[in-house]
Amino acid sequence: MSDTSLARRHRVVVIGSGFGGLFATKALKRTDVDVTLIDRTTHHLFQPLLYQVATGILSEGEIAPATRLVLEDQQNASVLIGGVEKIDVADRTVTSTHRGRTTVTEYDSLVVSAGARQSYFGNDHFAEHAPGMKTIDDALELRGRILGAFESAEVSTDPAERARLLTFVVVGAGPTGVEMAGEIAQLAHRTLAGAYRTIDPRDARIILLDAAPTVLPPFDDKLRRAAADTLEDLGVEIQLGAMVTDVDDDGLTVRDQDGERRIEAACKIWSAGVAASPLGRQLAEQTGADTDRAGRVLVEPDLTLPGHSNVFVVGDMMNRDGLPGVAQVAIQGGRYAAQLIAAEVRAHRKGRDKPERAPFRYTDKGSMAMISRFHAVAKVGRLQLTGLLAWLLWLLIHLVYIVGFKSRLATAISWTWSFLGRTRGHLAVTEQQVVARTAINRLDAWEDSRAVPEAATASAR
Amino acid sequence: MSDTSLARRHRVVVIGSGFGGLFATKALKRTDVDVTLIDRTTHHLFQPLLYQVATGILSEGEIAPATRLVLEDQQNASVLIGGVEKIDVADRTVTSTHRGRTTVTEYDSLVVSAGARQSYFGNDHFAEHAPGMKTIDDALELRGRILGAFESAEVSTDPAERARLLTFVVVGAGPTGVEMAGEIAQLAHRTLAGAYRTIDPRDARIILLDAAPTVLPPFDDKLRRAAADTLEDLGVEIQLGAMVTDVDDDGLTVRDQDGERRIEAACKIWSAGVAASPLGRQLAEQTGADTDRAGRVLVEPDLTLPGHSNVFVVGDMMNRDGLPGVAQVAIQGGRYAAQLIAAEVRAHRKGRDKPERAPFRYTDKGSMAMISRFHAVAKVGRLQLTGLLAWLLWLLIHLVYIVGFKSRLATAISWTWSFLGRTRGHLAVTEQQVVARTAINRLDAWEDSRAVPEAATASAR
Repeated sequence: MSDTSLARRHRVVVIGSGFGGLFATKALKRTDVDVTLIDRTTHHLFQPLLYQVATGILSEGEIAPATRLVLEDQQNASVLIGGVEKIDVADRTVTSTHRGRTTVTEYDSLVVSAGARQSYFGNDHFAEHAPGMKTIDDALELRGRILGAFESAEVSTDPAERARLLTFVVVGAGPTGVEMAGEIAQLAHRTLAGAYRTIDPRDARIILLDAAPTVLPPFDDKLRRAAADTLEDLGVEIQLGAMVTDVDDDGLTVRDQDGERRIEAACKIWSAGVAASPLGRQLAEQTGADTDRAGRVLVEPDLTLPGHSNVFVVGDMMNRDGLPGVAQVAIQGGRYAAQLIAAEVRAHRKGRDKPERAPFRYTDKGSMAMISRFHAVAKVGRLQLTGLLAWLLWLLIHLVYIVGFKSRLATAISWTWSFLGRTRGHLAVTEQQVVARTAINRLDAWEDSRAVPEAATASAR
Repeated sequence: MSDTSLARRHRVVVIGSGFGGLFATKALKRTDVDVTLIDRTTHHLFQPLLYQVATGILSEGEIAPATRLVLEDQQNASVLIGGVEKIDVADRTVTSTHRGRTTVTEYDSLVVSAGARQSYFGNDHFAEHAPGMKTIDDALELRGRILGAFESAEVSTDPAERARLLTFVVVGAGPTGVEMAGEIAQLAHRTLAGAYRTIDPRDARIILLDAAPTVLPPFDDKLRRAAADTLEDLGVEIQLGAMVTDVDDDGLTVRDQDGERRIEAACKIWSAGVAASPLGRQLAEQTGADTDRAGRVLVEPDLTLPGHSNVFVVGDMMNRDGLPGVAQVAIQGGRYAAQLIAAEVRAHRKGRDKPERAPFRYTDKGSMAMISRFHAVAKVGRLQLTGLLAWLLWLLIHLVYIVGFKSRLATAISWTWSFLGRTRGHLAVTEQQVVARTAINRLDAWEDSRAVPEAATASAR
């Protein structure tokens, strides 16, 4: 794979410390290579549990261990913090920056697993009013907004305003949206039930919206119905076939078969779509690969780019036979890439030919979503589970994939308290996001105000 | 105490959900009064453990339970979120605002326990470069700065810059400063020891600075020496008699007996002084009470304001015989105020005269500071403890005062991991503070740039 001398170790660069990147790096532990893992953040993030940080069940630390400490004992791995700005597949370099400092890292093999971000389908101005859930900051921002809405409702004396403050809209009825809507309902109806004096949090309306005609599209009809029934038992209103056409500070506009209507809601959460990291398009432009509408790269059967068998794209950024953007696809893709690299490095060292590459084969271990405490839906092979059994399976699987024994124990305790008891241990609200938003809004206002006079001056000349 | 009819319940307003305010509120649980607890934040904060959030040992949730849930079962208490802007002792009202909404709350008795903030002794511009440690956001900001310095050092190739990035200066050698310096040393030398590839975190310099001639001024000489010895064993450099005269992004300027000198340090932490909440001066102006240099109100023997026996000031905001700003003074002051109010409400209801007020008497339960794992110093009455025994006592006392059994259990587990093991469970870094700071800096730059031309225009006329 490498055209340099035998003396130099094969250099692998991995972009992204999510499931794909972390598992690729770990799978190279016993291989004679140098691995550099590059990520913008210092932590591995268990994204499927972010909604529990947003709703006060877990702390961010429990689902975001420091990547460096996870990989501390893997001597052939180093971690580089920085946002990747450029991949050059001709020069075989990755350019990243951290606090204004630019680093160029050379590679022999590259595993790109930079994930996806929230997509507003071209309506990026929705983001301010309906944050998504992709980072720790997103989750803490949402935690502040959800609890802040109850606080504002407590001191409001206007019934219409109070109703608006107590209406929570989750856009997108995939697994994340379903889990989020369920947890807000349980937060309002169980945890906070007796905590206020002028409002009853049980009056809160939680609306789960989707343009699709069903909740949980990846599941079969039986599980969808079970999920919808459980959500409705929790008090969640499900509105399907409803497309969001506008979002502002006070609510959103929705178009369904009866035309356009307005929902007044202070707190909106967006989980309707994802777009692959822009690195996907960058790679496609350089290699002639295609991308799909979500910006995911259509990869070869061995998850590489056309004509670049040393560049792998895995996880949420890649499209291969339409595999879904779930943790297992990223984990298996990352491990697959690592195994190919390891086999070829070994062959090269022994002076043998490169072994033939078997195409990537995804093993579907099933999919699941927690709906409420004691209720989940799970599909494992042909088995379809609902209720308590599915929920216990959900707990078990998620505990297994949390990194670190201490985080597992802490999470198990947090869950015991939240699900058997009714309190939640992590409702502390940070304020920096409010500071940031206020400052950014003032900046925007300034830039808008400056734009006008300059234009005016120009035309006056 | 109240001049209204017997039918209306006596209204108590408590300002501040820290130790003073929370314990005052809880002590009124069985009294026939209505209590309104007003605070800017939604949580009670165990401030003495904030340094452990900053250094990744604890999550913010473990030391900051939602005040509402703590008081949920106390039916006579309600929580109002808002920053108090005005107290009017003549009208007996408290004016607070939350997200632009103003609330005026009337009281018959008032307990003011709004605490203290960091003081830079008139040099407020130090704050940007050397944050203090008073809120959760402060602690998360410091966590980001401390870990960020190691990350930047890892990619720096300039030895001078690397040394600057690996120098941590804690200003102020009181208990908070001592504990913080000790924890940064242990983070660098134990937790992160093997986590980097181009730097050795054990090379980090941790400097503990104070203008005073000793560490831990509240303790006796034997304990001070034990603390200093333990810190030096950890690798902390103690520089006493050193006054900070300037702080900027790259370091600080210090004046000591040898003149002025410069310390290059990327990460500075300020724990040198506190100033009482500005509500103290507001109350003093209205009542003719005196304030000390830190803005604390000199109160009457019953912790009230002169001529206003229904307004109590407790905790870090009050000065009575120079009592220190520690949790026990706030707790005992809050409870004392609550007991007086309760006794007088009972007497009033029974048609009796107000009972005589016995002056507030502080019971010194001792003071302690953790220096490192297995080492603390503690003064309990005449007993002076150091080492392991003091450390175990420290753990026990702090666990007792953490609110909620679940938080206690989680904290105990976090401590076991951090002190017996060497990892830390809460090193996840948020980014909003960076966003906020960047936006605020741009705003400041804009305001500065705008100020100049306007002045120029004015003088040109």
